[in-house]
Amino acid sequence: MFEADDLSSDLSGRAMHHLVSELFPICRSITGNGLRQTLRKIQDYIPLTTCEVPSGLKVFDWTIPAEWNIRDAYIKSSAGDRIVDLRASNLHVVSYSVPVHVRLSLAELKKYLFSDPDHPDCVPYRTSYYSPTWGFCVAHNQLVSLQEDEYEVCIDSVLEPGHLTYGQLRLAGNSADEVLISCHICHPSLANDNLSGIAVAAALAQYLRNRDLRYSYRFLFVPGTIGSIAWLALNQAAIGSIKHGFVLTCVGDAGAPTYKRSRRGEAEIDRAWVYTLQQSGDPFTVVPFSPFGYDERQYCSPGINLSVGCFMRTPHGKFPEYHTSADNVSFVKPAALRDSLDRAIATIDVIENNVTYVNQKPMGEPKLGDYGLYSGIGGTSADDYQMALLWLLNMSDGTASLLDIAERSGLPWDILKQAAVALTSADLLMRQ
Amino acid sequence: MFEADDLSSDLSGRAMHHLVSELFPICRSITGNGLRQTLRKIQDYIPLTTCEVPSGLKVFDWTIPAEWNIRDAYIKSSAGDRIVDLRASNLHVVSYSVPVHVRLSLAELKKYLFSDPDHPDCVPYRTSYYSPTWGFCVAHNQLVSLQEDEYEVCIDSVLEPGHLTYGQLRLAGNSADEVLISCHICHPSLANDNLSGIAVAAALAQYLRNRDLRYSYRFLFVPGTIGSIAWLALNQAAIGSIKHGFVLTCVGDAGAPTYKRSRRGEAEIDRAWVYTLQQSGDPFTVVPFSPFGYDERQYCSPGINLSVGCFMRTPHGKFPEYHTSADNVSFVKPAALRDSLDRAIATIDVIENNVTYVNQKPMGEPKLGDYGLYSGIGGTSADDYQMALLWLLNMSDGTASLLDIAERSGLPWDILKQAAVALTSADLLMRQ
Amino acid sequence: MFEADDLSSDLSGRAMHHLVSELFPICRSITGNGLRQTLRKIQDYIPLTTCEVPSGLKVFDWTIPAEWNIRDAYIKSSAGDRIVDLRASNLHVVSYSVPVHVRLSLAELKKYLFSDPDHPDCVPYRTSYYSPTWGFCVAHNQLVSLQEDEYEVCIDSVLEPGHLTYGQLRLAGNSADEVLISCHICHPSLANDNLSGIAVAAALAQYLRNRDLRYSYRFLFVPGTIGSIAWLALNQAAIGSIKHGFVLTCVGDAGAPTYKRSRRGEAEIDRAWVYTLQQSGDPFTVVPFSPFGYDERQYCSPGINLSVGCFMRTPHGKFPEYHTSADNVSFVKPAALRDSLDRAIATIDVIENNVTYVNQKPMGEPKLGDYGLYSGIGGTSADDYQMALLWLLNMSDGTASLLDIAERSGLPWDILKQAAVALTSADLLMRQ
Repeated sequence: MFEADDLSSDLSGRAMHHLVSELFPICRSITGNGLRQTLRKIQDYIPLTTCEVPSGLKVFDWTIPAEWNIRDAYIKSSAGDRIVDLRASNLHVVSYSVPVHVRLSLAELKKYLFSDPDHPDCVPYRTSYYSPTWGFCVAHNQLVSLQEDEYEVCIDSVLEPGHLTYGQLRLAGNSADEVLISCHICHPSLANDNLSGIAVAAALAQYLRNRDLRYSYRFLFVPGTIGSIAWLALNQAAIGSIKHGFVLTCVGDAGAPTYKRSRRGEAEIDRAWVYTLQQSGDPFTVVPFSPFGYDERQYCSPGINLSVGCFMRTPHGKFPEYHTSADNVSFVKPAALRDSLDRAIATIDVIENNVTYVNQKPMGEPKLGDYGLYSGIGGTSADDYQMALLWLLNMSDGTASLLDIAERSGLPWDILKQAAVALTSADLLMRQ
Repeated sequence: MFEADDLSSDLSGRAMHHLVSELFPICRSITGNGLRQTLRKIQDYIPLTTCEVPSGLKVFDWTIPAEWNIRDAYIKSSAGDRIVDLRASNLHVVSYSVPVHVRLSLAELKKYLFSDPDHPDCVPYRTSYYSPTWGFCVAHNQLVSLQEDEYEVCIDSVLEPGHLTYGQLRLAGNSADEVLISCHICHPSLANDNLSGIAVAAALAQYLRNRDLRYSYRFLFVPGTIGSIAWLALNQAAIGSIKHGFVLTCVGDAGAPTYKRSRRGEAEIDRAWVYTLQQSGDPFTVVPFSPFGYDERQYCSPGINLSVGCFMRTPHGKFPEYHTSADNVSFVKPAALRDSLDRAIATIDVIENNVTYVNQKPMGEPKLGDYGLYSGIGGTSADDYQMALLWLLNMSDGTASLLDIAERSGLPWDILKQAAVALTSADLLMRQ
Repeated sequence: MFEADDLSSDLSGRAMHHLVSELFPICRSITGNGLRQTLRKIQDYIPLTTCEVPSGLKVFDWTIPAEWNIRDAYIKSSAGDRIVDLRASNLHVVSYSVPVHVRLSLAELKKYLFSDPDHPDCVPYRTSYYSPTWGFCVAHNQLVSLQEDEYEVCIDSVLEPGHLTYGQLRLAGNSADEVLISCHICHPSLANDNLSGIAVAAALAQYLRNRDLRYSYRFLFVPGTIGSIAWLALNQAAIGSIKHGFVLTCVGDAGAPTYKRSRRGEAEIDRAWVYTLQQSGDPFTVVPFSPFGYDERQYCSPGINLSVGCFMRTPHGKFPEYHTSADNVSFVKPAALRDSLDRAIATIDVIENNVTYVNQKPMGEPKLGDYGLYSGIGGTSADDYQMALLWLLNMSDGTASLLDIAERSGLPWDILKQAAVALTSADLLMRQ
């Protein structure tokens, strides 16, 4: 339906949505073959490199866990029917369940069943990465309808030393300073809370790949928490180069955009996101940093403290489909994916072009007409472009960047950039 | 009805209210035996020491005045009826009136009568500490009903060298740094504007007396203005130890709490009061510092400038009973006294526990599960306690105190304290 | 009708309005005899000196243009009727039109006609100072009613080396530090956007002339943009002495006052204007600096950056009469001129008296009664004057100026000044 290189050029967002649907059936966790399949699929679009981090390796306060893979899992009634089946949904098994094969009464079985009474038709998503146990997740309506019986319970999983796998792509720009774009890849069959971020990140990487970039860009496709911690622990020398960044997650639902600030709160990336959201004229929400959420928790831990925020549409926990089987492919909308991509591109354009100019004729206003920058007949009011020329000249005393001027003037970014180019060509501004 | 040590343990506030009613009949002024009786009564509850400062002593720009005592005062009609009588209300005599015994026509008498037409049934409260005169305060309705007559006017008062008396209690804590709690004790028969502050201060002293305290606590029971000035002038070496403080006044009426900030405006005591008021979820008011009010005027004079605010319910002048005979024992409510005490205790708990911790595992999040600080099954949202753990770890880079973290996170104080204890026990936080 | 020295003493504003009407018929531009006539008329009121700056002189990035004078201009129908005539309105000719005398068809003529369809009955104001061309401005209704004809078009103007003329008045105060008051004088027959500023500036100069002043005052009556740039370029040594200032423009319409902040945003002049506007209790608007408007653009260019704001009533472009023939003498109201003058005087009074005092008795409050500064009978609430005494004593620790105290207390300026005088007389405050 779409070519591999279509993600960023397809204005409908359907190419990204297609990638979401391709990734949806894969059974992912924080380690295992599901991650490898996921990264291979992303490699159809962008030249990711993958990294395998061995089980048992100490990464800061954590240890890479045993690798988890699962072949089959089910609950069978005594009549032999698979009433709960991994093949129906990857969510049915608590992630990282240890292997089990037993027969249990209903009462015994219920100790291992998780359901969500608030969303009785949905299968909830539960994990137990670090305490060895097993369990099944089922719709609450199914749970309450289960009859007294002897059930056959089977989880054919393997937990053994192996690797944690993550993907990485670095696009070299003119500077070694980096922008970090990170998304998590560890959720099984959850579309908005996982796959939407992957699709937009891959599209953004495609968009940036062949451009002349001020910054270098590092894209991380990592399992949540342990993946970002592993990357940080194994790449400490690289951390100092990261000047800006954001996490992409839940970027495919129909809700309005949300930006969560970095721990620094007023970092350049925070201001760039807020400015572009404001300029769009659409509804949006900006929330302060909090230490709960996605991998910005790790990037913004006190010893790391990067300028990394998080871009979402409806935040985790604020949409009823969150962490249930209702967060499926149809919950994610092509137009929302595209809008999210466009907003990320707009914000990166601010970061790329946010330089400081110095007015070369700072005593009074320069005579713009002599530089072809003034319309001949006076007496009328100024348009945005004229105002951009005047704001740039007035504020460019060496202390104000283009973003400072944009925030103060409220003018559109493209017009300010265009005016800055014209003033620089006229030798009225010089880049600091 | 109540035991002497009941004030802080009686959750109904009736014990404090009883103290108010015991103190109400005493005729107080800024000097004199009324002060001594008042302090002796308070000594039934807490081990106050009293100080006698001699008349004529220079204290900063002031001089301790002559001691004033009064035995009797009345206005008698020619028929011999005491139509105005000190025995009926201490408010009838202008405080510090010089002795007088004359017969006057109604016109002459009226020059010495004060009334409040806005509250025609109430006797107003008036003073003339520093200009020798005399006068009576009467209800406006009585004033206008007075008939032409020859009146016998008698004020049997004594103004002679003596002492100004104040009370003081210092509770030694682990540090020599002090918290100052101050209330005025000079108003005769005014319940909210005077006695409520005394009752809550005494209860607070009882509450703190047998605790292990970080700070030392200094309670001052002083006549207004001249008393605090005398204390400051005579204890200048002690001023530097006062790190926090507040004045207690008008803390017994049924209105919502009001906190008036210190002159510094954003001192730790100001922030602690505002935080605890916000956390309560009840209506409250915070007002900026102004140089009018109670003894915070002196503690916040520019050469002293202590971090001392003022806690009230309805502020002086904002309730119609203010400075009239309607500010009586029934105007003060036991529940309001108790609520005021609870809020003072909550604020002191913040000050006592507002320390700065340093995260000992600042690179990424520590693996809380390894310390027994994480619930086993993931995928659900975090409760206040989990959030407290995360906020403490995230902000504890050595620049943020517990109050900083409380303000930013909006979490309840007790949960933050509990989480800090747990993290400290796990060696994840260390007190700075 | 009014004496020459009536402007500031006439409380009705009619004297200023009379000056506006006297100046209205003069054909002004950025150079030429219209400026000289205008300045001579102002000299009837205040002892301006005039300066003649020669054409061709380089002033910063600009060059003084050729001097423009015009004797006659018209468009005649073939029947010989002057259908457009300079004598009817100076606005009919595009300012700085080159001479022309031709016969044109309607189609040819229309290329040189300017009208404003949004205000079809008004003649718009257009200029072409720096690109040599010519044109006529006409009401849009006239434009569309023009018949096919051969028109005689004549502009009898002269553009030749001469001078740019501006006026200046310096009132020497006790300090060499200056307050700059500037207005533009270059608009032909526009009453609010030009003449109102001249009238109020002249009245303000009259008001200040014979007073004992803290600051020196420099009044500039300059053609817009090129005039202020010329003054700045030729008086660079004087710029450093300018501590405060404001531009006066559009100060005669019936709208509410507007203050536009200086580029510094929170300069003393900005705070003084905002305080006096707030104190008045009337509606008003404060707008942030922007690099579009009047000569504050030059005074606030980045290499100059003076603390110069702009006082207006309805801002340029916000009233429909702006830059049209409807901005005539009747659009300007005497009462509005007077109100503008009064507000300028009030603001200057703040600047003149904004000094810092130091409390000489900073330990506790001084005993005001001993200095005759306290009413004898206590127990009542404090009036503004008592509060002013207390605020001054409390905040005067050497860091707070009178304006700081005024802003924080919200008290009226006159009462604060009066209280400061009393406290200084009592040796309780000393001027820093």
